[in-house]
Amino acid sequence: MPRAEVTLDKIVSLSKRRGFVFQASEIYGGFESTWDYGPLGVELKRRIADAWWRDMVMAREDVVGLDSAILQAPKVWEVSGHATGFNDPLVDCKACKGRFRADKLAMSQCPRKPSKHPGEHSDCALTPPRQFNMMFKTQVGPVEDSAAITYLRPETAQGIFTNFLNVQQTMRMKLPFGVAQMGKSFRNEIVTGNFLFRTREFEQMEMEYFCRPEESAAKFEYWVAERLRWYRSIGLREENLRARPYEKKDLAHYAAACTDIEYRYPWGWDELEGVANRTTFDLTRHSEASGKKLQWMDPDTKEWITPHVVEPAAGLSRLVLVALLDAYDEDVADGEPRTLLRFHPRIAPITLGVFPLVKRDGMPEKAREIVRRYLDRFPVFYDESGAIGRRYRRQDEVGTPFCATVDGETMTGGTVTIRERDSMKQERVRIEAIGDWIDARTRA
Amino acid sequence: MPRAEVTLDKIVSLSKRRGFVFQASEIYGGFESTWDYGPLGVELKRRIADAWWRDMVMAREDVVGLDSAILQAPKVWEVSGHATGFNDPLVDCKACKGRFRADKLAMSQCPRKPSKHPGEHSDCALTPPRQFNMMFKTQVGPVEDSAAITYLRPETAQGIFTNFLNVQQTMRMKLPFGVAQMGKSFRNEIVTGNFLFRTREFEQMEMEYFCRPEESAAKFEYWVAERLRWYRSIGLREENLRARPYEKKDLAHYAAACTDIEYRYPWGWDELEGVANRTTFDLTRHSEASGKKLQWMDPDTKEWITPHVVEPAAGLSRLVLVALLDAYDEDVADGEPRTLLRFHPRIAPITLGVFPLVKRDGMPEKAREIVRRYLDRFPVFYDESGAIGRRYRRQDEVGTPFCATVDGETMTGGTVTIRERDSMKQERVRIEAIGDWIDARTRA
Repeated sequence: MPRAEVTLDKIVSLSKRRGFVFQASEIYGGFESTWDYGPLGVELKRRIADAWWRDMVMAREDVVGLDSAILQAPKVWEVSGHATGFNDPLVDCKACKGRFRADKLAMSQCPRKPSKHPGEHSDCALTPPRQFNMMFKTQVGPVEDSAAITYLRPETAQGIFTNFLNVQQTMRMKLPFGVAQMGKSFRNEIVTGNFLFRTREFEQMEMEYFCRPEESAAKFEYWVAERLRWYRSIGLREENLRARPYEKKDLAHYAAACTDIEYRYPWGWDELEGVANRTTFDLTRHSEASGKKLQWMDPDTKEWITPHVVEPAAGLSRLVLVALLDAYDEDVADGEPRTLLRFHPRIAPITLGVFPLVKRDGMPEKAREIVRRYLDRFPVFYDESGAIGRRYRRQDEVGTPFCATVDGETMTGGTVTIRERDSMKQERVRIEAIGDWIDARTRA
Repeated sequence: MPRAEVTLDKIVSLSKRRGFVFQASEIYGGFESTWDYGPLGVELKRRIADAWWRDMVMAREDVVGLDSAILQAPKVWEVSGHATGFNDPLVDCKACKGRFRADKLAMSQCPRKPSKHPGEHSDCALTPPRQFNMMFKTQVGPVEDSAAITYLRPETAQGIFTNFLNVQQTMRMKLPFGVAQMGKSFRNEIVTGNFLFRTREFEQMEMEYFCRPEESAAKFEYWVAERLRWYRSIGLREENLRARPYEKKDLAHYAAACTDIEYRYPWGWDELEGVANRTTFDLTRHSEASGKKLQWMDPDTKEWITPHVVEPAAGLSRLVLVALLDAYDEDVADGEPRTLLRFHPRIAPITLGVFPLVKRDGMPEKAREIVRRYLDRFPVFYDESGAIGRRYRRQDEVGTPFCATVDGETMTGGTVTIRERDSMKQERVRIEAIGDWIDARTRA
């Protein structure tokens, strides 16, 4: 059976219906493309973030974590180039008073009826483009002068650069080493949209990998391959992933190389993660501006080195959307149409549903015992309401890969039936073996 | 041996030296009481947050999670009362031009020398207090008019109230049920300080427990006791915790009861968590303003109920500070003074250090095998540099409860020596039994 067509509408609707993602401030009509994660969405996001942290930080001797503040000294953004260079070109229309992004007029919409793109009505009067800074501004402290103005960070990376010495020294790191960080960033995008794809408030998962200049080209290739491998390890379909190297002419002036890892969204191939070789750009700028020596001394040669930086920068909010898109499917189960999410067990919000067959004969108690037993190994969910078939269907729709049913045989023989989401096959497993049974299928 | 004296200076210094907490934007002279979490700080914070999420959400059938956006419609803050009522009283001094919090003059400092409190110099000229709103303001979208102004959320709770219906309906929740959320909040405090205790950017762990009005008093008592129990379960010392019920006259006008869970900080007893019975206040206000029926229908009686809300609201950033303060100790080990953090194994940034005795004879490979084997059960850290005694001491200082050493006997007999941080006792444990050995001591 071919895979069902996936549309953004189906994903938005399922997300709302089953508690993955709600519109923020929905009771007041929503707010500017911001979204709240519901009970299942927050678990999905946590699972993805935990998988990233586990593989990028915990499992590696050469990478450590960091969590820097959203509010930093404004000097950081002057030095990084964001205060002056992080702009979108905007045009105003003197006829309709709308304001649009000059380089995305075809994606914008004129507020007048019949609605067209800006510039397409007969009397459109577009001004020449002006630069609009994309950082959110705010003011810290009670005194209203410009000294107290700062910005919500537009990326987490700068917090890593400014802590280069702190981390290297306190953790006794030697080149090559990486510093990884997850967290919220904010960009005052003019054109938002495509659900979680482009939002003004979003979460990033960034890593800065510091290495010797002569090895940065090889490390860049390593990280592109490693990040592709990682996306496959959380279950994304091979055919929906690709690496797109930038041409030399499209590179930022300081970058030696850049490759986007792209996903095939319903609207076509588009960015999921960017891997860049930023060379010495950031450390050199911050070193010059702060007067601190942001370098590393080779203990053998006593030579001071300004490391190159290879940066795999992923979007967590965007990856939640990709996980939903990639997992969505429809098929037929027991003669009835079924909607399901084929999440990999590593990222499914619920790994194991546990059901008592009936609400008596000690079965609910036994099922809850199983929940408590495995709670610290993977997410477990107890459900006793409705027919077993309906309970399966509800778990299929939120992507739970395994459901264990407690029945009469459990009470006498100590085994449960585990039913697998994709194949719908059932197997009897001893209660004390459930954990290893699931681990074996999670790593596979 | 009595416990060593704990001062804030010792904690700030250890935090910086060992990579728990750095000053944000430190290379530019710091910024306004904001802090960055270093490699060990971010792990400590994650462990505390995970313990809270596990006990408040994952282990409970009556509570689900949520993660709402920091940026919400400004209407949310009008209705919640924050836009008009979330103020600090400020005074200006016409002599020194300083601005101070009227109710905390004794904690503020005049910028002139010799430095005194505002009002203490002979020519101080303090204005009458004016109200200053504590929310950070920002502007969303490219058009500069007041419609686009909103605020950084000053609490996570309102995101739960506005999603009451979404969560209740999609998760088929029945009273009583709770919705829990962790995340950043922002308050433009005039007086910050005491390290992580009062900062403008901070993380909260809040839960709103919706229940029938007639049971809210009992649920309130339950949650005060339960939260105290939880703090003890992550290892905080009994003698440093207390519950302080508010007197009727000190309650917010809408609250039926409030109890602070206080910790004994170096400066005295002060807040760690607040548990409040907010009655129907928030749901009623949002219901009136939005026109949505934020109620729950009892399926038996068909009666519509506006639930009461009991809110245990904890500060995660604050709890990181408390964990450090509570764990700090000094003693003598092998005849030498030792600084250590006595973290409970549930929250220690590293649960198990793994050391090869020497860097040959296959010991590093065997030690790394152990790291990989237990990586998914608890945080494991590999260290091969320096004498074993020095490696123990480094782990003691960051609070690692257990260290396993791979030696000649490991290579022949398959056991390691596990050394316990507090007692410094050593025990031989089979490699395949390490996980259960540690689990038994983590739950205890």
